[in-house]
Amino acid sequence: PDAEALKAASARNGMLTKPPGALGRLEELAIWVAGWQGREKPVLERPQVLIFAGNHGIAARGVSAFPAEVTVQMVANFRAGGAAINQLAKCFGATMAVHALELDRPTADFTQQPAMSEAEAVAALRTGWDAVDPAADLVVVGEMGIANTTAAAAIAAALFGGAAEDWVGRGTGVDNHGLKRKAQVVTEGLARHTGLLGDPLQVLRCLGGREIAAMSGAMARARAERIPVVLDGFIACAAAAVLHRAAPGALDHAVAGHQSAEGAHGRLLAALGKEPLLALGLRLGEGSGAALAIGVLKGAVACHSGMATFAEAGVSEG
Amino acid sequence: PDAEALKAASARNGMLTKPPGALGRLEELAIWVAGWQGREKPVLERPQVLIFAGNHGIAARGVSAFPAEVTVQMVANFRAGGAAINQLAKCFGATMAVHALELDRPTADFTQQPAMSEAEAVAALRTGWDAVDPAADLVVVGEMGIANTTAAAAIAAALFGGAAEDWVGRGTGVDNHGLKRKAQVVTEGLARHTGLLGDPLQVLRCLGGREIAAMSGAMARARAERIPVVLDGFIACAAAAVLHRAAPGALDHAVAGHQSAEGAHGRLLAALGKEPLLALGLRLGEGSGAALAIGVLKGAVACHSGMATFAEAGVSEG
Repeated sequence: PDAEALKAASARNGMLTKPPGALGRLEELAIWVAGWQGREKPVLERPQVLIFAGNHGIAARGVSAFPAEVTVQMVANFRAGGAAINQLAKCFGATMAVHALELDRPTADFTQQPAMSEAEAVAALRTGWDAVDPAADLVVVGEMGIANTTAAAAIAAALFGGAAEDWVGRGTGVDNHGLKRKAQVVTEGLARHTGLLGDPLQVLRCLGGREIAAMSGAMARARAERIPVVLDGFIACAAAAVLHRAAPGALDHAVAGHQSAEGAHGRLLAALGKEPLLALGLRLGEGSGAALAIGVLKGAVACHSGMATFAEAGVSEG
Repeated sequence: PDAEALKAASARNGMLTKPPGALGRLEELAIWVAGWQGREKPVLERPQVLIFAGNHGIAARGVSAFPAEVTVQMVANFRAGGAAINQLAKCFGATMAVHALELDRPTADFTQQPAMSEAEAVAALRTGWDAVDPAADLVVVGEMGIANTTAAAAIAAALFGGAAEDWVGRGTGVDNHGLKRKAQVVTEGLARHTGLLGDPLQVLRCLGGREIAAMSGAMARARAERIPVVLDGFIACAAAAVLHRAAPGALDHAVAGHQSAEGAHGRLLAALGKEPLLALGLRLGEGSGAALAIGVLKGAVACHSGMATFAEAGVSEG
């Protein structure tokens, strides 16, 4: 972030026509955006929503309430404008792009071998990197991929420790048997790749998925472009966690958009040191919770950049 | 609310391309708006923000961190477009109207006599009633009035019991001495009018203020017009609480937009049985927290009314 912009924005915040601190977290959000955008009065006029879709070998293990063909069906729904994220992107004035990553070639079952080869992981990271519009002023990264809460749980367990049971949740709605299968699959995956799990990028390659790697790539690119990122739910945060473990401060440009109803999302946010803006019980993915939080960020920036100062308005400072 | 619209909206919600319940609270919000608007697919295209301003006799008792002249100065700021609420209303596509209620004639000091005569209270209620645009599809009611957290605390204590200390907070930022003065003023007010406090409308008249009565009037009118209301902070909720105590179900058309940082707002929301949509530490008034929540409601309605069904999109239901 730009130190001068941070300082100027912070000074401006103290002069606006409100009691000190009365806009609560909106104040720190606006100053944070100012720092990343490098201007005293930030704007949020070109938010970009990026959705990555991938298929998973472990879907065949019965870890999801939905069949694997739903991934490609939902990509068609995104492209036709019928999904929740389409409505939210439109509602908050964001552009939206959907990237389907080789849906007809699922990753390998990670209980048997690494989910991706090195070339596959790099290609997926690169898809995410290339997807970011350098002219965007905010980026939301979302996903679709039947079985990917299981992959995300495996990544989280590998990066932060704990038992598989600590990280698996009901995803799109599995029953208790499905939940046990998820834990079993995660446990097997961790055991299979145990020698490689000290390296966050190997965690991503061995246990992740193409859409998860693409999300990591997009978040890293946004950082390089100094574009603030809004984190979505459990799976997006698993992608973010790879960067967090790979390089301290790698998520300084990211804010947690919401806390999902997926069981372990709160634990994952805590591991990332992020306090969510919203907690409304969403558990859909697609970037939906993060997109909803665009409204909060727009409100924060609108107040900061648009309000009159005490001097301009002729209001007594108390 | 319209029972048929509720039923149709609820059925529609179950057919949309998402796992059941995956949009969390957005689903119940959209169905609730559908019921009040009387249509299966609600819209939020004409939100109205109403700001009422009043002055208080008790301001002379040193209960605020700001001088009383700030009320009229902030009204000028609202009219010039420089306040936080102007930016938020614009950000979420709301119209905004400001009603200043006899600012040069503060209410009486309620520790000495009723804050308002019956005629004054009725005139203020009427101002609020008349301010609502029957064509609005959502209403946010906000306020400005130096010393009005003290009046709101007195109302809350009279309606729900408890000690003055349970209901007073730091408002715009009083120190510990100011906080003690607030509690003292509330205690004196409750003692002065003790015989009248069984009647919520007398509570409003004796301990309230013109802007608080106007808010009650506007919320009641919105109910009569079947327009959903978003509740703002502590003071707006005190105005709402008068209706709640006067008639069971009087706030069925209202949702809590946010929980403010003002100490007793959580307690007041609990007394109203309302779960806030946002909790971002705001404590500004002006309808600001409720206006921010318009974004959440717009997102909820956009998803509900715009998404494709499983059948329309050709997505498997799992």
